[in-house]
Amino acid sequence: MSYFNGMESKDTYRHILKWGDKREAGIDHRMVSLLKEKFGLDDAVFRDRYLPGAEEVRLQKASALTPEQLDTLRSICGSENVLTDDLSRASYSCGKFYGELLDLRLNNVPDPPDAVVSPRSHDEVEAVIRFCSAGKIAVVPSGGQSSVTGALRAPQGGIALDLTRHLNRIITINEVNKTVTVQAGMFGPAFEEELNRHGYSCGHFPQSFEYSTVGGWISARGAGQASTGYGKIEDMVVALKAVTPAGVIETRDFPRTAQGWDIFRLFAGAEGTLGVITEATLHIFNYRPGNTTSAAFIFRSFETAVETMRRIMQSEYGKPHLFRISDPDETDIAFRTSGFDGTFSDRLLQRLGFRTGSRCLMFVTVEGERDYARFVLGKIRRTARKGRGMYIGTSPVRKWLEQRYSSAYMRDPLMDIGIMTDTLETAVTWDRLLQVWSAAHRYVNTRPGAFMMIHISHVYENGANLYFTFLSPMEKGNERDDFIMFHRGLVDTIVDNGGSISHHHGVGRVLAPWMEPHLGKSSMDLLRAVKKHLDPDNIMNPGGTLGIS
Amino acid sequence: MSYFNGMESKDTYRHILKWGDKREAGIDHRMVSLLKEKFGLDDAVFRDRYLPGAEEVRLQKASALTPEQLDTLRSICGSENVLTDDLSRASYSCGKFYGELLDLRLNNVPDPPDAVVSPRSHDEVEAVIRFCSAGKIAVVPSGGQSSVTGALRAPQGGIALDLTRHLNRIITINEVNKTVTVQAGMFGPAFEEELNRHGYSCGHFPQSFEYSTVGGWISARGAGQASTGYGKIEDMVVALKAVTPAGVIETRDFPRTAQGWDIFRLFAGAEGTLGVITEATLHIFNYRPGNTTSAAFIFRSFETAVETMRRIMQSEYGKPHLFRISDPDETDIAFRTSGFDGTFSDRLLQRLGFRTGSRCLMFVTVEGERDYARFVLGKIRRTARKGRGMYIGTSPVRKWLEQRYSSAYMRDPLMDIGIMTDTLETAVTWDRLLQVWSAAHRYVNTRPGAFMMIHISHVYENGANLYFTFLSPMEKGNERDDFIMFHRGLVDTIVDNGGSISHHHGVGRVLAPWMEPHLGKSSMDLLRAVKKHLDPDNIMNPGGTLGIS
Repeated sequence: MSYFNGMESKDTYRHILKWGDKREAGIDHRMVSLLKEKFGLDDAVFRDRYLPGAEEVRLQKASALTPEQLDTLRSICGSENVLTDDLSRASYSCGKFYGELLDLRLNNVPDPPDAVVSPRSHDEVEAVIRFCSAGKIAVVPSGGQSSVTGALRAPQGGIALDLTRHLNRIITINEVNKTVTVQAGMFGPAFEEELNRHGYSCGHFPQSFEYSTVGGWISARGAGQASTGYGKIEDMVVALKAVTPAGVIETRDFPRTAQGWDIFRLFAGAEGTLGVITEATLHIFNYRPGNTTSAAFIFRSFETAVETMRRIMQSEYGKPHLFRISDPDETDIAFRTSGFDGTFSDRLLQRLGFRTGSRCLMFVTVEGERDYARFVLGKIRRTARKGRGMYIGTSPVRKWLEQRYSSAYMRDPLMDIGIMTDTLETAVTWDRLLQVWSAAHRYVNTRPGAFMMIHISHVYENGANLYFTFLSPMEKGNERDDFIMFHRGLVDTIVDNGGSISHHHGVGRVLAPWMEPHLGKSSMDLLRAVKKHLDPDNIMNPGGTLGIS
Repeated sequence: MSYFNGMESKDTYRHILKWGDKREAGIDHRMVSLLKEKFGLDDAVFRDRYLPGAEEVRLQKASALTPEQLDTLRSICGSENVLTDDLSRASYSCGKFYGELLDLRLNNVPDPPDAVVSPRSHDEVEAVIRFCSAGKIAVVPSGGQSSVTGALRAPQGGIALDLTRHLNRIITINEVNKTVTVQAGMFGPAFEEELNRHGYSCGHFPQSFEYSTVGGWISARGAGQASTGYGKIEDMVVALKAVTPAGVIETRDFPRTAQGWDIFRLFAGAEGTLGVITEATLHIFNYRPGNTTSAAFIFRSFETAVETMRRIMQSEYGKPHLFRISDPDETDIAFRTSGFDGTFSDRLLQRLGFRTGSRCLMFVTVEGERDYARFVLGKIRRTARKGRGMYIGTSPVRKWLEQRYSSAYMRDPLMDIGIMTDTLETAVTWDRLLQVWSAAHRYVNTRPGAFMMIHISHVYENGANLYFTFLSPMEKGNERDDFIMFHRGLVDTIVDNGGSISHHHGVGRVLAPWMEPHLGKSSMDLLRAVKKHLDPDNIMNPGGTLGIS
């Protein structure tokens, strides 16, 4: 069944919505049969693309900026760095939130900016912000556009401030302090490659790594796949420089001072509502990939796997870097799509009590100094054994690492066959984790034909994240509202059962309505007061972001 | 030479100024001979107390609160919890900053509160803050009063809000999440003992441990002696509850969420300027003192010791918990006052090139799981050996740990013989550490008869703190101004050479003048905006604290 081939025109909505390098990813035969079984699909579904978004982009909204305003922006940044064509404006109107992809498939761009501006320096960012402040022109800072929270929409028009075109270099690697100072618009791969050449690693590898930037990581408080060992991005930042309507905030790289509270931390998670991060200084790590040790385990139940994970995190013998558990549903999918299901090994596992529907995979890596990585992995193996987990080698981890950036390509072909699929995530303490997990599954099970996999991928002494991936046939003709209602119910379920709104995706506009009930009015008023001071005219990413803009 | 004995009256300025349990600590004979040599003192100096502060406390300022105001406070907190007598007001007028001790020795209490109020619950704190907001009465939150930054003075009168009398209990130990929720006014020893009984430790042991509180640790961003392994207090806090004039801020214990920026972090380092912390939830650690490994090393120079310390911190094989280097001056004092100087071992060390005037002691402990502690210590020993450090056993570390809270008692007898002595500290990156260290020594050496010891005691991947202890004969008759000028010059030297204002003492009123030049106007305006929102009438610790009140 060969389908969905051929290059697309670059002028279409489809080009904008597609992930990463824009390739037309296929669905392999095992996944096809799984989808047929789960959702009762017939072959016809795979023949045509549902809502392909194949039309050429034509915006309804004309740019609201005056010729004089555009001239000023061109005089600041150079005319080649101010774009107003429909395709550019549409491209910068959104991230990769399911609702946004659906809009594009419906040939709809509801919130385009009036122009895309790419400043060439920190000083040009300052000049642009000064100009936009004076004219009350909205500014949406833009990195790799991998946001899944609607944080890049421009409901009030204005400019998309693209940091990736020019502000994309390492300024200095300080080998004495083991830090790097980098411009905010640098993409993950270029950043990591240059650090590698100097013997360092950034330690931050989110699934969006190839298509996200340092500034975006900080703004959304991202977490990399090895965050359990290296920390979230906010743990890595030691200083930053940001342009706000109230002036430039520049903090210094002192280790843990006591000079009042940390100013730089206000920008970690601000999602562009306070200003534009132009530079950051981050901790870096020794690049020694040969030292990495890894192990995969299988457990008889999610509960025992989680209990073992908690023990490992609370034992104080060092921590893993990558640390994951796939719940029974995700484990099942992994086994079926890898061809493991039904093999001799599978039958053996079943006989040992590791049964389909309850068994769970756990993946671990430990990095750092060679002996340390071996020591900690040894400890983890002993704890896992005590927790009745069975060691199943290292190759499942290696295979997972090989495909770790590619699963993001799966969403587009799934939507092409009319499958609604999105991810949500939460941070939750250990004592409420199982409750959130089971409530979320119960919620999804109330929808006929819906299916959810959950994993844990970022782990702490006091809790972990839960990462939810759901799939369900779209309600044809009512795709948007159906999704919104279903999504809303899932967020409510997570929050009502004791989870946070987000662990590392951020809040954006999609989760903003939950902020005030979740954080409380006093905290929200405090967020708003900080915003009001730095951005009195609300030009920074306005129109709902974080519930404060 | 037996001197300075006998119990003091509890009504004197001396009683207030003395450290800890108020005992009259002696100076041992080795220290006496050292002091005589360093400062050319004769026996007469040791016979009488200089500026003993022996008078009974009599305040000049009458309480400015009206009888009605006091009645309201009594009706909220109970009359036994509202004190207005001179001794209570004087006792709560200051911390343990050298300038404050000098004032007391001069029988002077410049900034007393009008009353000392000890609320019995969070709700009573709320009621007090509401009442004080309405009446624009200043409120200075008070914990163990070990502040060395003038943060507890009440230049605008009002009330000292004592949290230690009633708000001093653990609310809950959550063994699943490995966290504790504790009231802010609980002192270190009671907190640690109760945790120990449940198999846990707080991991936070500042020199003031016995006389400081959880709320104080957070407010001043304190660091314990094992902070290199356990983190500073701000690394341990996961949530808190605080009463501000704008309402109660209560954050939740989610692990690392991405719901905007962290609100609770604004209270870490706020030093009472934003509100009153009433409860906090903190990470706790396994209490396994038998697992602790330790090692002492000696290096031929400060430079090689620092280089080795940096390598250890950047090797990614786990970190020590306690990690210290005494510079040559401090090492010299340690050897002389311990009786090591001139022994056979000393002469051997000298012959091996570890010479007085350049040699440095390094102390290490590693805690946690038993094998982990051994593994990491083994790695540290190898790195130290490569760095030409000589292992000198574990007993120096053990001896240091035994006296770790008692050296704070030394200041009072030193001041009794007319010695000015104070401590300052800074956080500095590795690439500027030696510069700050040598500049500070040069500065102190410009003062005839002055002497300084420096150590490193809190260490990070990108830098460390420097802790300065200086001694010099007072300028008799001009003790206060002389100190202020000398102190100012030292702070300027630290800051001009690239150090921060403070690593863990905080800022208070003493260092407030450096805040704006050091942080920049934009950052200070942002601090002020947060303050203005939460405390619009500036009743929370007003009169200069942090340079924003």
